[in-house]
Amino acid sequence: MEHLYEKLLQNARGDMYPYHMPGHKRHGWGELPEELYRIDITEIEGFDNLHQPGGILQTLQKAASEIYGAEETYYLVNGSTCGILSAVSCALPFAGHILMARNCHKSAYYAAYLRHLKISYLYPQLLKEYGILEGITPAKVQEAMEREPDIGAVLVVSPTYEGRISDVAGIARVVHGKGIPLIVDEAHGAHLGLAEGFPQNSCQAGADLVIHSVHKTLPALTQTALLHVNGGRIDRERLRRFLRIYQTSSPSYPLMASIDNALQYAALEGREAFKRFRLRYQKMLEALAGCSVLRFLPPEEAQDVGKLLIGVGEAGITGRQLYQILLDRYHLQTEMAAGQFVLAMFTVNDTQEAYERMTAALVEIDAGLAAGQVADKRRIEAPACRDEVQWELAQESLALDQAWEMETEYVTLQAGEGRYAGEFINLYPPGIPVAVPGECLDGKTCHYILQCVRQGLTVQGIHIEESSDALERRITFKVLKL
Amino acid sequence: MEHLYEKLLQNARGDMYPYHMPGHKRHGWGELPEELYRIDITEIEGFDNLHQPGGILQTLQKAASEIYGAEETYYLVNGSTCGILSAVSCALPFAGHILMARNCHKSAYYAAYLRHLKISYLYPQLLKEYGILEGITPAKVQEAMEREPDIGAVLVVSPTYEGRISDVAGIARVVHGKGIPLIVDEAHGAHLGLAEGFPQNSCQAGADLVIHSVHKTLPALTQTALLHVNGGRIDRERLRRFLRIYQTSSPSYPLMASIDNALQYAALEGREAFKRFRLRYQKMLEALAGCSVLRFLPPEEAQDVGKLLIGVGEAGITGRQLYQILLDRYHLQTEMAAGQFVLAMFTVNDTQEAYERMTAALVEIDAGLAAGQVADKRRIEAPACRDEVQWELAQESLALDQAWEMETEYVTLQAGEGRYAGEFINLYPPGIPVAVPGECLDGKTCHYILQCVRQGLTVQGIHIEESSDALERRITFKVLKL
Repeated sequence: MEHLYEKLLQNARGDMYPYHMPGHKRHGWGELPEELYRIDITEIEGFDNLHQPGGILQTLQKAASEIYGAEETYYLVNGSTCGILSAVSCALPFAGHILMARNCHKSAYYAAYLRHLKISYLYPQLLKEYGILEGITPAKVQEAMEREPDIGAVLVVSPTYEGRISDVAGIARVVHGKGIPLIVDEAHGAHLGLAEGFPQNSCQAGADLVIHSVHKTLPALTQTALLHVNGGRIDRERLRRFLRIYQTSSPSYPLMASIDNALQYAALEGREAFKRFRLRYQKMLEALAGCSVLRFLPPEEAQDVGKLLIGVGEAGITGRQLYQILLDRYHLQTEMAAGQFVLAMFTVNDTQEAYERMTAALVEIDAGLAAGQVADKRRIEAPACRDEVQWELAQESLALDQAWEMETEYVTLQAGEGRYAGEFINLYPPGIPVAVPGECLDGKTCHYILQCVRQGLTVQGIHIEESSDALERRITFKVLKL
Repeated sequence: MEHLYEKLLQNARGDMYPYHMPGHKRHGWGELPEELYRIDITEIEGFDNLHQPGGILQTLQKAASEIYGAEETYYLVNGSTCGILSAVSCALPFAGHILMARNCHKSAYYAAYLRHLKISYLYPQLLKEYGILEGITPAKVQEAMEREPDIGAVLVVSPTYEGRISDVAGIARVVHGKGIPLIVDEAHGAHLGLAEGFPQNSCQAGADLVIHSVHKTLPALTQTALLHVNGGRIDRERLRRFLRIYQTSSPSYPLMASIDNALQYAALEGREAFKRFRLRYQKMLEALAGCSVLRFLPPEEAQDVGKLLIGVGEAGITGRQLYQILLDRYHLQTEMAAGQFVLAMFTVNDTQEAYERMTAALVEIDAGLAAGQVADKRRIEAPACRDEVQWELAQESLALDQAWEMETEYVTLQAGEGRYAGEFINLYPPGIPVAVPGECLDGKTCHYILQCVRQGLTVQGIHIEESSDALERRITFKVLKL
């Protein structure tokens, strides 16, 4: 099979002069790597067209569908974001009714806003020890669908950002029982179903539309993703329409070549590489099992390999503090800090060094914590997001597409209780909304936001006045003017 | 000022281990350039966040705004497409009324579809000799705005794909006279206003929102663009909302670094480089002035430097035939072939070789054509798109947002006359719709599409049955089932 990078190189080596875009004419300026410009072309003769493929891109997309067990696969160059926008826009009519997990990525909310969808939520359970949300159960989906008979499509996230895996096959059976499509945001699971010892992916589990970020867990460049489609419930032409709408008409060939490259790697070396990955990860967890105060979630059916959740609930420090120690003292840049944990991400592309450095650091930090040697022992209450019950109680809300167009005013966080949110508020990463425009804010949510700010976490959608004392800073945010 | 690429390199050289996305962990697989992976990061400490900038990206965007004379500038990683989607979505309320040039890029139509806009068109004049559309005059905008008093925003394209430049300052005065914003799709004009001898850009001319493709005419990577905003008619927060919606939440740092790099080049070496570009281009046209049958549009106020239109109206061959001769015999890959012309694109990054090879080839081809030495002299009628009058006559149409959701059926092109289009039909490149869903198709349009297919041009949105004889192939397309 012909691969994109080789073909791009061949083109760069030829004597064909480019009187066409891009304007760099295959050479950059200054220090930027010349190799990058040499392979950066537009849709010239022989290089197909992502939005109407009939050549090499068609062949590569077909190969990708075979790797994942999908009927059809689309290369994406605007991230999983455009895959989710397209999947939701396609699966439902304008102003349709979607049932979606409350812990979906922002882009799912954006799709609902653009398409004026009515939203019903699936509220995941809280895994209290780490303050994270669990997967969604088929029973919960069943129950919600019975309550709301006009639901047109279901959207869940699996694995979650923190690695929680849902029973997608079970959910698919329930959803298909009503004859409607299931969309799975599997952005964090592009590695699933590729090798022994890993759970099946959502195409194999029967989902109709599946979105994969290739850059998150496979060795592809940032901003690359895949959209898979299966079965007869999805209008394929309509899907292509939305992919054309939400993606540039000038897709980047280096990005597409990197998708091809990552999937080649998975196909050719995946078997061995994933096995090595799993064993190294398992070995690290065994070594970490001796820790006294730090806690780790081991990989099992409901927890993905690679997402190392380091629980600090009993360690006497916050997630942010541990994050900072790992960064400053050990030069280990982790993925994210939250109130009760730090998330470190391992993939098939990590070297042995990754495991050794993290293990050594955590063992040392744990010993210090156990011996009471923490520099800053000021205890701050660990913020925890709402649990299932509190979420369902707080579910009074206005429709997103209407609320987000309404007039708003700024109030302090303290004055926000009982008001309706005027803007999305979320921790970044991962970009899952803590508050959605139109949602009535309860005291617990306002308190949670306050605690996140006090712990130095990145909260988007609020305004923080500058002050030297973190506890004294005035926090305001937008609420609806009703 | 700190630049992005240098900072990315520094990061790559450090000993900080990445326990975060992207999954490649800064090294690729196989032949792909390692340099690319080393600088491909996500929003880690010190690298800011494109969707909420407060560090290096804020600084770079500020520098970009100063280069173009804009109040604010946004880096885009989903091409001009997302800039146009965002500008149109922001400037008008849902179901608002837009006045837009009929030769807008597809993405403008997509924005109108997503936002359920009512569309009124500005129909450009036809430049008959080349069969291309002219710019838009202020008088035409004035007239249309008086006819439709509820118009909420105006959108024009300047320069056009073929390089036609409108009097944007004059249009801005008319539009602002009604207190509404002007959006200029200046995707093909990122080089304007940067050096002497080039027309001012649309920020300098007073437009409220301006979109630039950095990769089209400056040395940046494909898929990069800028959105500029000026004045008090645009709600900046609303604009950022739509930029977050239409762009990935994982923007590519190499793409952003290439924007920074191209603008640095313009700022540091632009003065000399653009002068050299203009003089070389001018000299080539002087050499080509001696041609007997090929015609060229010289750069002047209404025609951009760099877009070489090679007219074949009197040459006895079609644009496609000339395109193929340049490709096969001379190894010159041009941008596009149409009925009456071939478009070759020159930029500031072309070497002297570009001018010499093109000049030599065209002089030789011209001499051959003048002497009657063309291999395939089969004359095919040159397709020409509708002129202004025919367009206005054919303007009966259904609303796009409704039409594109209706049931459709396939009919042959011959049976299409008098029916309403069910899908976009366009030549690619440039992706400007020949027919928009809901437009009533007249005989001239159907004939035009047929001629384009017969001449081997790429027509999207139609279905062509395989046949060895180009004149006998059955062409079908979607029309509304009413």
